Amino acid sequence: MRHAVSLSAHGPAFGVNPRVGCAIYAAAADGSLGELIAEGWHRGAGTPHAEVDALSKLSPEQSRGATAVVTLEPCNHFGHTGPCSEALIAAGIGRVVYAVSDPGQHSGGGAERLRQAGVTVEAGILVDEVEEAMRVWLTAERLRRPFVTLKWASSLDGRSAADDGTSQWITGTAARQRVHEQRERSDAILVGTGTVLADDPSLTARGDAGELMPHQPIPVVVGQTAIPAGARVLHHPQPAIVTASRDLPGILGDLFDRGIRHAFVEGGPTLASAFIASGLVDEYLVYLAPVLLGGDGLATGDIGVHRIGEARRLRIDSVERLGDDLLVVARPVSAAHPPTGKKK
Amino acid sequence: MRHAVSLSAHGPAFGVNPRVGCAIYAAAADGSLGELIAEGWHRGAGTPHAEVDALSKLSPEQSRGATAVVTLEPCNHFGHTGPCSEALIAAGIGRVVYAVSDPGQHSGGGAERLRQAGVTVEAGILVDEVEEAMRVWLTAERLRRPFVTLKWASSLDGRSAADDGTSQWITGTAARQRVHEQRERSDAILVGTGTVLADDPSLTARGDAGELMPHQPIPVVVGQTAIPAGARVLHHPQPAIVTASRDLPGILGDLFDRGIRHAFVEGGPTLASAFIASGLVDEYLVYLAPVLLGGDGLATGDIGVHRIGEARRLRIDSVERLGDDLLVVARPVSAAHPPTGKKK
Repeated sequence: MRHAVSLSAHGPAFGVNPRVGCAIYAAAADGSLGELIAEGWHRGAGTPHAEVDALSKLSPEQSRGATAVVTLEPCNHFGHTGPCSEALIAAGIGRVVYAVSDPGQHSGGGAERLRQAGVTVEAGILVDEVEEAMRVWLTAERLRRPFVTLKWASSLDGRSAADDGTSQWITGTAARQRVHEQRERSDAILVGTGTVLADDPSLTARGDAGELMPHQPIPVVVGQTAIPAGARVLHHPQPAIVTASRDLPGILGDLFDRGIRHAFVEGGPTLASAFIASGLVDEYLVYLAPVLLGGDGLATGDIGVHRIGEARRLRIDSVERLGDDLLVVARPVSAAHPPTGKKK
Repeated sequence: MRHAVSLSAHGPAFGVNPRVGCAIYAAAADGSLGELIAEGWHRGAGTPHAEVDALSKLSPEQSRGATAVVTLEPCNHFGHTGPCSEALIAAGIGRVVYAVSDPGQHSGGGAERLRQAGVTVEAGILVDEVEEAMRVWLTAERLRRPFVTLKWASSLDGRSAADDGTSQWITGTAARQRVHEQRERSDAILVGTGTVLADDPSLTARGDAGELMPHQPIPVVVGQTAIPAGARVLHHPQPAIVTASRDLPGILGDLFDRGIRHAFVEGGPTLASAFIASGLVDEYLVYLAPVLLGGDGLATGDIGVHRIGEARRLRIDSVERLGDDLLVVARPVSAAHPPTGKKK
């Protein structure tokens, strides 16, 4: 399964299709895995799924009785391509081992179909690892809304701008380049109208030399204030989505229906705070610059916390030094982690 | 010299006396260091200085012509003990190698005295390393005020309390225990009256089981508001210093005169911001808990920064994960590090 996970990483980092890997092993007399005879992965919409990609490299004699190890439950529906369950059955695969069940409304049920056809099916192998590798896509499919990454950059004391509103260059080159890479791996970038008016960001994903990266996320502007026709975001390679709605779940549902599975929320404080208050953030990327600003230019505002016991608790996944800055990656934890401690 | 630095670490971590190490090597014909024949370090006020401690282990024959390697320039004054320069001369030491000149008003001049007596003197060896090891004491002696460590604990979004003022238990056990160790290594803990009224902290340095540590810093309360006679800080093992002065340099000068070389400023936001605004912080200890609070309970207030170009720039020395929390250790950098960057 670990090999299948590594194969899955070849897949697309964005869009509606999951990153799936498949490794096929020859039948072994004692029930263990035999020789690795084929590898496959999914390359994106319209291309063969991982299982079909792997099967395509085998003759009927080779696939008969073999074991397919695949990160996601084989699909059971006709989309751009035929169902993988049928392809595996037709190829005479004897055993299918997978990690995570397909949460798709239309694509699920592959395991049941395989069992009906007499294929041995084992599920739940290395499930934590695969859940992590497929976290964005699985979260989106399960919640029927995009996975939400919230990013902000602040001073060590939590300010994203000085009192006069100036905010450029809090973080250094390495941190800003990382943000562009994160934009590129997203399907959409969300900003509030306040940020458009204050900073006029282009919201493109650009490389070191300022060149546009191959994949550009769709800019989404949220807010009640009109934005000028000359705003850079309206001249983005992808047509911008502009909404005056305040209904964040509704906005996210609409983005999901448009095929957006990963939304990158870049702020400003009003939009960021609304996402936090609504419990709609799946991943936090907090860039901390080694500066102090004080004053009123806060990175977050009212997030609906009034007592310390209501604090939004996160779990830190990683801390990285990027140039002079820090990048803290965190995710929400359930309220089931009560803080403990003594008076100072 | 590296060996002398490691010896110096045996010395006291607080108080008026520096941590100094001395290693004495037998004379070698070619001018290089011979065999290590004695080690010494300073154990605190009233005990022999490192050089005298090392010399005490040698016979007159052994010390004659030997080389003394010492982290700090040998002192030249009579305090609790006689001048080290005279002791080295009397012992017939042929060469003295040291890293950092003694900044003391009364104790300096040892190198000159040694040279007058015909001793070969080399200064400036491994000076950066020794400057770092003796940073607290050297800073205090040079500036004639205590070295100031400013500590705060905040959420990832820069709040040290929730909107209703509750602030207990933002950080976890490991972080709080580290704070007690840092208190123990300080000579004084400074808090504002606001913190005394809000949290009634004991400001003692305590161990895992709540027991008092051997060394207790002196509590110093700064502010205009009266504090109740029952406040815990007034029942500290060390009598508290309470001042209504707003003159931070004046307060620090007074603490220096009382023998305090390391002041640990624990807040709250008003006092912390005043220290930052005054440029009086030598070291920042920022504890970041993986929570979000939003709202008005900020760790810093007005620090005199109004435009982004005026930001107080720091250099991060280390980032450490302590339980679920982060400890960021940083120091101020001069304004000679202009930020560079591009528009987002």
